[in-house]
Parts: sequence; C-alpha cells; structure tokens
Amino acid sequence: MSDATASRSPYWLRDNCPCSDCRDPRNGQKLFQITDLPEELRIAAEVEQDGRLEVLWSDGHRSRYPLDWFTAPAADPTAAPVSTAAGDRRSEAGKRLWRAADFAAGIPEARWADYLADPAEQAAVLRAVQRLGFAVLREVPTVERQVLTVASSFGYVRETNYGELFDVRIEPEPNNLAFTSVAITPHTDNPYRDPVPTLQLLHCLENAAVGGDSGLVDGFQAAALLRAEAPADFAVLTRTLVPFVFRDRHTELRADRPLIATDPLGRIREVRFNNRSIGRLQLPDAELDAFYAAYRKFAAITLRPELQLEFRLGPGDCLIFDNVRLLHARTAFEPGGTSQPLEGAGGGRRHLQGCYADLDSLASTVAVLDRRTAALDELQTLFEGEGAGEYLGEAVTQAEHMLQAAALAQREGAPDHLVAAALLHDVGHFTGVVTGRQLMEGQDNRHSDTGADWLAQWFGPEVTEPVRLHVAAKRYLCAVEPAYRAGLSEASEYTLQVQGGPLSPERAAAFAELPGAADAVAVRRWDDAAKVADAATPTFEHFRPLLAALMR
Amino acid sequence: MSDATASRSPYWLRDNCPCSDCRDPRNGQKLFQITDLPEELRIAAEVEQDGRLEVLWSDGHRSRYPLDWFTAPAADPTAAPVSTAAGDRRSEAGKRLWRAADFAAGIPEARWADYLADPAEQAAVLRAVQRLGFAVLREVPTVERQVLTVASSFGYVRETNYGELFDVRIEPEPNNLAFTSVAITPHTDNPYRDPVPTLQLLHCLENAAVGGDSGLVDGFQAAALLRAEAPADFAVLTRTLVPFVFRDRHTELRADRPLIATDPLGRIREVRFNNRSIGRLQLPDAELDAFYAAYRKFAAITLRPELQLEFRLGPGDCLIFDNVRLLHARTAFEPGGTSQPLEGAGGGRRHLQGCYADLDSLASTVAVLDRRTAALDELQTLFEGEGAGEYLGEAVTQAEHMLQAAALAQREGAPDHLVAAALLHDVGHFTGVVTGRQLMEGQDNRHSDTGADWLAQWFGPEVTEPVRLHVAAKRYLCAVEPAYRAGLSEASEYTLQVQGGPLSPERAAAFAELPGAADAVAVRRWDDAAKVADAATPTFEHFRPLLAALMR
Repeated sequence: MSDATASRSPYWLRDNCPCSDCRDPRNGQKLFQITDLPEELRIAAEVEQDGRLEVLWSDGHRSRYPLDWFTAPAADPTAAPVSTAAGDRRSEAGKRLWRAADFAAGIPEARWADYLADPAEQAAVLRAVQRLGFAVLREVPTVERQVLTVASSFGYVRETNYGELFDVRIEPEPNNLAFTSVAITPHTDNPYRDPVPTLQLLHCLENAAVGGDSGLVDGFQAAALLRAEAPADFAVLTRTLVPFVFRDRHTELRADRPLIATDPLGRIREVRFNNRSIGRLQLPDAELDAFYAAYRKFAAITLRPELQLEFRLGPGDCLIFDNVRLLHARTAFEPGGTSQPLEGAGGGRRHLQGCYADLDSLASTVAVLDRRTAALDELQTLFEGEGAGEYLGEAVTQAEHMLQAAALAQREGAPDHLVAAALLHDVGHFTGVVTGRQLMEGQDNRHSDTGADWLAQWFGPEVTEPVRLHVAAKRYLCAVEPAYRAGLSEASEYTLQVQGGPLSPERAAAFAELPGAADAVAVRRWDDAAKVADAATPTFEHFRPLLAALMR
Repeated sequence: MSDATASRSPYWLRDNCPCSDCRDPRNGQKLFQITDLPEELRIAAEVEQDGRLEVLWSDGHRSRYPLDWFTAPAADPTAAPVSTAAGDRRSEAGKRLWRAADFAAGIPEARWADYLADPAEQAAVLRAVQRLGFAVLREVPTVERQVLTVASSFGYVRETNYGELFDVRIEPEPNNLAFTSVAITPHTDNPYRDPVPTLQLLHCLENAAVGGDSGLVDGFQAAALLRAEAPADFAVLTRTLVPFVFRDRHTELRADRPLIATDPLGRIREVRFNNRSIGRLQLPDAELDAFYAAYRKFAAITLRPELQLEFRLGPGDCLIFDNVRLLHARTAFEPGGTSQPLEGAGGGRRHLQGCYADLDSLASTVAVLDRRTAALDELQTLFEGEGAGEYLGEAVTQAEHMLQAAALAQREGAPDHLVAAALLHDVGHFTGVVTGRQLMEGQDNRHSDTGADWLAQWFGPEVTEPVRLHVAAKRYLCAVEPAYRAGLSEASEYTLQVQGGPLSPERAAAFAELPGAADAVAVRRWDDAAKVADAATPTFEHFRPLLAALMR
C-alpha cells in the first residue's frame, strides 16, 4: 500500500472519490449516500501512474486521485478553501481580535466608487468585515433605500419585524430604544431572533445632531479577556441559556441562547449582548447568583475604554458590521427637527437607515471576487510571460498584438465588451491544446473556440462570441472583400488556408446573419491592423478595470 | 424578609424590576445596564401591601412586584411564554418526536381558506410546524409565486443563491440535484449556509409525473434513537465539525457545523444531514474512522422504514417544514414535458415552487394569533357571563342588546367593521372602571372611551372610533333631530343628562365634521333600536369569524 493511502480511513477516502459516478460533474455534488457504501470496505489494490493513484475497492469500484490531492488539500475544491484551523472563518480562529488602539492609523474603509470598480478593493472591504468585524464605505450616495443596494452588493437583505430597512431617528411612539435620543451602551441587535441576523448595515443620511456618535467593541475580544481573567465565569456564560424576549402589538419573539456561544471545539463563535431584552431567567438561585456575577464581569469588560472604538458617521458613510461579534453603541444626542418634531428640539437632525444581512453570503462573495482577481492575474501573467513570445512570424509579440488591437478599439470609441474582445481575441493561442507554432506548421488549433470557451469562465457572450467568431470573420471578409484579402499579411494569408480558406458564398451569407457577426468583423479589423512594429501600446494594467467591470 | 424574596438572587430580582424607571413603558425594554447596579446590592427593607411586595434597595431604589409575579411567572410578559422546560421551543424539549405510524390517521393539514379566515386554525397549522416539524396547506391557489404569499402569512422570505423562490423541475444544466429527476434520499437543505434557513416551503403547481413523491423523516427522532442505541456515536456527531460546501460560478459557500447540534444543556437543537455537500474533513485518521462509523450508523437510522413518512404533493398543496429538524426526500420520477423538454421524456410534468423562511417569525406569529384567540374568548366570556346581566333598566340584557345591534347592522348590509362596532359598542360597560349600575346612579363612566381604548388592543380605528363616538352621536342626534330625542327610552333619556345633554349647535356642527361621524350615527341608530325584548338574536359565535378577520 502506498504512503498516500497507508492507514487512511477507507470510508473517508471513498467518500471523496472524484470520479463522475460519485460526483455530478456539472455541480460537484456527490451522487451517492454514505449508506450506499458496503459494510466492509477495503482497498483491494492500487497503482500509481502518471501522477495519479488508482485505487481498486473491495466492491469493485475504481477511484483515481491526483497525487497532490493527498499532499495539497487546498487544490481540492471540496476541501477547506482556507486553513483548517480557521475553517469557515466564523469562530475566533478565523478572526483578528482587536482593541481600539489597533485602529490609531485609521479604520478599514473604502470609497463606494472604488468598491464597485475593483474586485480586489471590494474583497478587501468585505474581508475586513469577516476578519475584523466591520468596515466603513465612504461617499455612498445619501439617498433613501441606498443601504439596500449596499447589502445587495455582497448578499441578501434579511427582513425583520422592523421592516426590510429601518429608519434610525426619533419616533414619537418607539417600539425600540434605537428610535429615541437616549444613549445606548454596547449591545448586539435582535438577540431574541434565532437565527439572529449576522450582519447589520447603518447608512448615514444626515447627522447634524449634537452627540449621536457611534461606538464599536470587539465582543470576541471581550469574551477572550473574560476567559483569560475568569475562566469559571466564562464557562457559566457559555452554558447558561438566557431568554431574550421582545414583544409589541404585532410581535412576540423569544430565543434562549447563551451570552457567549462556543463551537464544539470550545472556540468563541457568537456573542449576544443586550440587557434591554433579557427576560426573566428561571433557574435555581445559586445559578442565578453565578450567572449575574459572571454577566456583570463580562459587561464591565465590554465597557473598558481600551476596547471602545469611537467614531462619527457622517452623511454618505455606511457602516457594515458583524452582529454576532461586535457590540455597537450610540452616544445620546439632542433631538433636532425630525419628520415628527418632538418637544425639546435643538441640535440638528440625525437620520440613519439600517438593514440586516448575513455573513455566509458575504464570505461567498469574497471567495468569488478572489477568483476574479486570480483570473485577472492569470491573464496578466499570460500577457507578460508567454505573450512576450513571437507572434506567428509577425513583427510584434502576441501581447503587443492584442494590446494594439484593444488600443485601436478604444481609440475608435468601441464599447467596453469589444475592447475586451479585441484584447483577448487570441488567448486561445496560449490556452489551446495546440500552440501557435503548431498552427504555423499547418495544424489549425481552433484557437478562437478554445479561447472563447476558456474566457466563458468569467465573461459573458458579449465578450466571448466575437472572440469565437474572429477567425470566421476573416474567412468571411476574404469571401466578400477582395481588397481585404489582398491586404492580409503573408503569415495571415498562410493561416487562412489552414483555417479553411474564404467562406463559400452560402456560408458567407449565413455568417452575415449571425447576431455576433458585426462585432466579430469589427474585432477582426482591429486584429489585422494590430501588427505595427514598435508602436507605443498601453500595458495590460490599463485594461484591468474595464475587464473587472465586465466580469460581474 | 418575606418568603417571596427570602434567598432570592438580589441582582436577578432587581434586573426584573417592573417600575417605569427601569423599563420603558412604551415597549417594555429595560432602560438600564447591568453595570449600572451597585457592586454591593442588598434589600434594605420590604413591605407587603394590597397584593404587592415593595422592596427598598440599599441604593435607595424602590421596586414593587405584584405578589403573583413570584408564584405565577407566566403572568409576567418578560418571563417564558411557555414552560421553562420547553423554553423557546427550538430544542427537542419543545417538540413532539414522531414516527410515520403516528400519522396513520392523517398528517397535519388545513385548507388555505380556513387558515386565512380563522386565527385559531392558522395557529394550529403553524404550531404543528413548531411541534411536529411540518404541516400541509391544501387548496392553495396554483399560481406562480404563491409560495411567497404563504411564507409572508407567517414570516419573511429568506433569499439565497437559488433566488427569492426556486422552481423545482428538471433543468438542462442543474447546479443542484433538486433540479434533476433522480431520487433524492432524506436530507436537509443549504447545510453549507450559516445561518441555515430554518424553514422550507414547497408549493406544488403540477405533479403528473410517475414517481416524484415526497418523504419526511424526523431528524430529532433519528438523533434521539442514535443517542439511545449508541451514545458514543451520538457524542462523536455532536462534536465533529463537518465542512459543508457548495460551489458554482457565482457562489462559494462553506459552513463547519456538526451533523447534530446540541444546546448547552445537551438537548438536540439542530440536525444537518446532506452527504452531497459534505466536503473533505481534515482530521487525524482515528477521528475520521470514528466519525464515518457514527455517521453511517446515524444515516442507517434515518433510512428505517418506520421513520419514513411518505405522501404525494398534488397541485395546490403547500408543504411547510422545519429545515433544521426534518429530513426531506423525493422518489425518482420519469421526466415529462418541461419548460425545457429533455430526452427520455414520458410521464407528466412535475413543477414545485419553493422558498425559505425562518422559525423565529413563525413562532412570533403563533404567539400573536394566540393573543387574538384569547381576546375573542375574553369577549365571548363577557357576552355569556357579565353580559347576561340586566342592561341599565332596559327589557334586554347587555348581551342581547349588543347582539341585536350587530344583527340589525348586518341585516342592513353594513360593512363588517360597522357590524363589529355595533356588536362591541357597549363593552365599556364591562371593562370601564365604573359600571353601568353606577352610570344609572348618576356618574358618567365614559364607557364609550374606555371601551374604544380597550378594543384598540386588537382592532383598528374603523372599529374603535364609531364605538368612541356613539355617545356623542346620541347627544348630536338629540341636538339636530327633535323626533330622535322624543323616541329615546326612559333610561336613555336619563343617561343623556348624565352624559351632558344634547350638543350645543356649535359642537353639533363640529361633530358632523368628524371623519367618523356618519359611522357613529349609524351605530347609534342600531344601538337605539336594539332593545326589543325576547327578539331572536344570533349568538356571539356567529360574529367570531368577522371579528377575527378584522383583527389582522
């Protein structure tokens, strides 16, 4: 038995068989149940060849594992996309705990416009929410309901009894202290909900009030301090079920949850902290005493000045924070004119709009954005590496050729998707199974198809189809424009033959009917014109934002 | 020290102080933080008087507790609305575990129309979902997106990467097995989400396929059986973090959760079961062996025939079930014609629409519906008890009088809200601090106001305002219709004086301007006419559905 499988748990190995009988190739989901495996499962035989380990099972099934599957789990999409210790990044193991001083140089923030334009920037903001528990978007348009647009940029809005979104300003008959002007000490929202919303967004539309500043405390940090300073109290808070309750005319919610929830490995995973909604515990008095002693100690820690991060939300700021980790607070303020003016007015208006969302979709968005950034990096590497190689005997390199084509398209004011198509039209030369050199040796690498299929991982048909058709477009133009063919370079005239020569009149007519024909012809003309030696061309960097925007 | 507070935890007692300095009277939320209480808190003195215990605290604060607060916790709105053992009803302690045979007499179900008409019926259906984990609504209109209407009747739709709603039918490029025709063994949905949607709805629009039946298994029952038969395996599944993963072009989700989650008291609280999305565990091999052995044992239990409840969803059926407790399954079927016909067609179409929602809002809806039912019961008790008493010297009882008024309104085809107003116009006589008898002794009990305010707990202004104005309407009519006053009964003429006599011309004009004036006058005329001795009148029961509908 090989080192790879020696002493491996057979059911684990078989449960992870990558073959297409075991996993749906279309979606990667497993096609069998664990109970479909025999009572006695053994490895009957195994052979290593061409970098794969083939296992023959006692029930006759064959599994083939790439050898790096055993050495580099991360290479396996079904394995942890992050370190095993951090896991799904929801416990303290996946967080960076902080104190206020850690942000002396500034809090995690980004401009809304940059967040929208650059997948790396967006991922950085969302990753801050994942790791630190919060981030602030600046210059978010101060229009009503914009907070829902922010939430939709990374996930789904979670509606509650407070509505799809809620207005944080003074209300005459508040059903919640948030809608008054009193100070609110650090707390988490909706503790009486289960599932509790794991994210909250607060978008500031106006804040001319005196006071009304925002505060954040890292609840995981506070819990970790309690664990270090008073382990017994920490244990009490992790095992005491606290009834959180909320009741108004239309609602009656209750959730029995601990103030500090740990995962099966004992790691801090969720904090609920909100004295306003703690109901009446029903416990033996000894346990009540122990709970209140621990609770008071934990509460005191959350109020330590070194843990209090304070800042002021101004118009256009949108705070996104982890509602099962961070405690948020608000200083008292002088109520100014509001939609329903109250007595004691003075100071200016304060109006925030908030909504709830969840961490799972945010994490998914981070992962997908990282994939896009990786794709752009891969393309850039192609341009700067392989692309520097010679281009089918032309006077320019492959990269120069494609960059020139894109620059021509841009100069002519072509829409972004055509600039991208011009830039990427020949990537098939890189990624095709057959190289450009082989094409020059008389074998068509159908680089237009292989390129279009490869690009389809990230781009829509508006980009991939002109790429797919750019060779056909050449054969079309040769059929309908004698002058065009006469202008072809020597190399291009040669590859025309390999590619099948000019289209027949019938096929030329059919081509002209294709929806993408005009775009393909446009790309083709930039392609043909993009072979100027030593012409000044922009770098790949120049086109990155344009490509990033098209990936959405 | 009294028995009530002897050996009571002082912080617990003080944290539950009901005074208006400690709790916002408008929303019942606490106005202080636990850290606001002094380090050393003692009871300085206490006295019992008129059914209340007054406690003087060492910091000078005074708390007054109704004595039954100590004896009957349920009477305290901040205490558990249900038995402490059951708590928030989310753990096994709040459920009724079942086997298929328990539904030999039929599964929990109701007609959509009845569910909408009767709060008790709606509560019964939703309570079945809470306690048993599922219920089926019949005769739900088979129109697209109707499933969202069902979800909105008790909570909020939880959007996911599958959309706000998802269509369960064959798709050519499925990103999930649900969208194929293969059999799907018992599982829970979205285990790779955290928070996982706690409820799922499946609304059948058509099901003419051969096969494609539905199955349910009580995952809590299966887990309880595992605990009883193999405690060590149960323990392994509660402490092993399993990476659940899902990945497609737009999504990359991961949640590390145990297959069986218990609460801090060790009670079963959540089950996740879905082999299709279990990723690659990274554990020492000994732990992998232990996990897979326990996992296979648990999986085998879920497949026991006695646990499999099978039924067929027909057009118009909407299944609502607990997605963190019940496992759902589907038998394979022959794909029939679909929106995208596939090869191998045969059999008929099968089309379900599904969406997700959450248990917390469902529980809240049950509680609020129960309040409405309690209110209707209270009203009925008033009519059948106190109401049987004599009515201010008239020849009919209070109840007969109000029932006659409502019957008259209904006979004249009055809208429901006016029938209700006529029925309830005199409840102030019951609930007012001053009784009708005292009114007859010359003291105005302002029963119209007290009645309207009391009714405002459940009814909108279209019902309460005519009640509020029905006395003013009498004084108005006396001012503008001499004939009306002449027709008043002797008792009514007497009470007119107590109530302030006819309105002055100015006030009569002002009254006529009130938005509710016409409705109040209508109610008043039914009021005056509803004093016929021995007239056949419908019972309160007759009006219950009408009142229930108005409470929404």
